[in-house]
Amino acid sequence: MKNTSYSNRGMFLENIINESNTYYNSNEKSLIFKKPTPIKVLNVSYPNNKSHLIDKAVYSSISTLDYNGIYRERYIEFDAKECQSKTSFPLSNIKEHQLEHIKAVIKQKGIVFLIIYMNNEFFLLKGNDIIDYINNSDRKSIEFEYIKEKGYKIKESYLPRLKYLDAVDDAFFKETI
Amino acid sequence: MKNTSYSNRGMFLENIINESNTYYNSNEKSLIFKKPTPIKVLNVSYPNNKSHLIDKAVYSSISTLDYNGIYRERYIEFDAKECQSKTSFPLSNIKEHQLEHIKAVIKQKGIVFLIIYMNNEFFLLKGNDIIDYINNSDRKSIEFEYIKEKGYKIKESYLPRLKYLDAVDDAFFKETI
Repeated sequence: MKNTSYSNRGMFLENIINESNTYYNSNEKSLIFKKPTPIKVLNVSYPNNKSHLIDKAVYSSISTLDYNGIYRERYIEFDAKECQSKTSFPLSNIKEHQLEHIKAVIKQKGIVFLIIYMNNEFFLLKGNDIIDYINNSDRKSIEFEYIKEKGYKIKESYLPRLKYLDAVDDAFFKETI
Repeated sequence: MKNTSYSNRGMFLENIINESNTYYNSNEKSLIFKKPTPIKVLNVSYPNNKSHLIDKAVYSSISTLDYNGIYRERYIEFDAKECQSKTSFPLSNIKEHQLEHIKAVIKQKGIVFLIIYMNNEFFLLKGNDIIDYINNSDRKSIEFEYIKEKGYKIKESYLPRLKYLDAVDDAFFKETI
């Protein structure tokens, strides 16, 4: 049995999104949080009368997306995905029940998208464009060309680290103006 | 060290709200979920190459409310509280950062409230009415009379167990019609 602290792999994108949310939320531009990672508790022990300790638990899967909240009076939900491949984004990154959830958010007229980090660039890809791609292709991955064409490039800055709400403005609020 | 399974105390209200959400969500009336309970993982062990087990973790506090999602195109967030006292609802049930969060959701024009189970009845109490009470009273608890007067009674039924979205209609959608 090897013990180790929590791995940092895949945490880069999550960290800069969390930092960006802290900035946006504290400036009252939005109210968006990462949901806690779901954990299935299998056993709790009581070392003393006042405290309890979870000594057996496993990570469980989530059927929704990782981030949600409110922006410009609209419901917003998204997930963040780092992609190692330079040519295409594997659809295996999106679980089947997450895809169903994306469709459900669209039906309820919520804002839903992925933030994809690929080739050292950040893109917002709308839920609708993901569903469209899947409906019109037999491929098991989304080509980088499609992401560049349909996606909205997210700019980096000092504060916030990722100006992803600007991309949300472009993607979801232009058509109604 | 005494080991025990997860306690059922306080789970009654949570369970019937979860059941109601399952009904509402599957009927496409809303998309509302309970957030996972936040757990701080202190150690992970690897019993074999394929799996990992959390063998040291503690519950951590949440700064938001337990449930959120989308209803009638609006952002909705709420918490569920069981109250043992028959005369007043102790404000210690609402953590200071949760109160700040309620104010923040109101500022973003989201729908925010508590579901309070008290004297065998269910009430929806709007975030605004909680803030008003606190601003105009030195008491450390909300009198039941105030909850009955300002709150919206939630009806029980077979499906959904708690017709709380009817109370949301009354509380948040009447004024705009």
